[in-house]
Amino acid sequence: MAWLYNDSLLTEGQRDRCDVVLVSPRNPLNIGAAARAMANFGFARLAVVAPYEPHWRESRSAVGAPELLENAKSTECLAEAVAGCTLVAGTGTLTYRKPEQRVVRLPDLAPFVRSEIERGGRVALVFGPEKRGLTREDLSYCHLLVEIPTDARQPSMNLGQAVAVCLYELAARASAAEEGAYSPIEAAENRSERTAASEKLELLAGIVERAMVAAGYSPNAMRKANRHDLRLLLRRLEPTERDARRILGLFRRILWRMEQ
Amino acid sequence: MAWLYNDSLLTEGQRDRCDVVLVSPRNPLNIGAAARAMANFGFARLAVVAPYEPHWRESRSAVGAPELLENAKSTECLAEAVAGCTLVAGTGTLTYRKPEQRVVRLPDLAPFVRSEIERGGRVALVFGPEKRGLTREDLSYCHLLVEIPTDARQPSMNLGQAVAVCLYELAARASAAEEGAYSPIEAAENRSERTAASEKLELLAGIVERAMVAAGYSPNAMRKANRHDLRLLLRRLEPTERDARRILGLFRRILWRMEQ
Repeated sequence: MAWLYNDSLLTEGQRDRCDVVLVSPRNPLNIGAAARAMANFGFARLAVVAPYEPHWRESRSAVGAPELLENAKSTECLAEAVAGCTLVAGTGTLTYRKPEQRVVRLPDLAPFVRSEIERGGRVALVFGPEKRGLTREDLSYCHLLVEIPTDARQPSMNLGQAVAVCLYELAARASAAEEGAYSPIEAAENRSERTAASEKLELLAGIVERAMVAAGYSPNAMRKANRHDLRLLLRRLEPTERDARRILGLFRRILWRMEQ
Repeated sequence: MAWLYNDSLLTEGQRDRCDVVLVSPRNPLNIGAAARAMANFGFARLAVVAPYEPHWRESRSAVGAPELLENAKSTECLAEAVAGCTLVAGTGTLTYRKPEQRVVRLPDLAPFVRSEIERGGRVALVFGPEKRGLTREDLSYCHLLVEIPTDARQPSMNLGQAVAVCLYELAARASAAEEGAYSPIEAAENRSERTAASEKLELLAGIVERAMVAAGYSPNAMRKANRHDLRLLLRRLEPTERDARRILGLFRRILWRMEQ
């Protein structure tokens, strides 16, 4: 999956300069889910602020817990967790709150993070507790508020899912804007096995037509029109070289059987 | 959050033409998490294939379960869940699997979904069970495989998080690329006529298979493998509704003749 590291908004080294901070998570499953999303998207540094101790122990010892949980640090307050960071980004929705600092939509976040890291800074992405999100006090440690664009009717995200979505955005989404030329064409071309050349399509059309005749599908009066339609049909289908060969094989067999 | 609807890759009405399908989810918490992510990003249509009945009941009656869970449908098999869909996209990682169909990276998926919906189609986004993901058999119902770009050291995502990341990508991420020069959509739109829905492709597969058998093309030992290949072939060809009808007519005639 080399392309992840090529196209990524953040290189692996850059991701090591980006901390994920969970403030007072209540549910041990959510700590585990956040850690798993970090492992999925190649982030390694987790800090947990004021965790409930039994849950913290539980999530660290869970079966299949990512290694990064062992190295996670736990701090008493948010200030301590983000002490070494030069850009602190709080996450949340704006539905119930009038923001006091700059708001950046998640889809627009990556350039902020990258430029901070490129000039030697360290970034923290801060997530609040499940029910209430980050407090006004928490947000006062943040340089900016990242808004995850959710539906106004159900704005509040599950903690583990919010972490996943943010890290996907930073790590994995190739940046169309940044790189100028966009890649999906190439992506589309990767599917491309060669499509069958015209002569192969003609060969195919010939044999299908013989099957049509043998089956009594194509009466004399319609033969010319059917041949024309068939030719167009094969071009709409755009079979690959290999698929054309397969279809040819099937029709040869069918023809042989009908002509027996 | 008006901007969500303005900048969104998919409008609200378009999102109603996009189903989320969970195949045999084991954990009721994950069903709930998937439903919550759907509510967060404004998707409403959920189908669950072969759920374990007690878990299915449990997740539907959970406190705070999104309303869309009440309207979710449960089906016995994947074919039934995607019967009305014209573009079926399976999700997964490529780490352990050699793909048999077109692979689209998640960051490149939206144009495919949107152009399908804009020409009147219906899309399904299919997620496999927690442990093993979609099987080869499941994938044979898919037109394309969506690759969520994850770290090779920890490729496998939690189900609820995978759903969240995919729906974020489709609903919420404003597309910088779209506004600039981007062509594959137009290319795709030139095909303009509606592609045949999954159920029509299955009908077609059934009749072609009968012809294979009647022609002695498909010996017993190969029948299962041939059926699998045929299903994939028909999805690669992406026949339109009308072309599917034509091919069906031809094969019915051929079959009738061979069986005489």
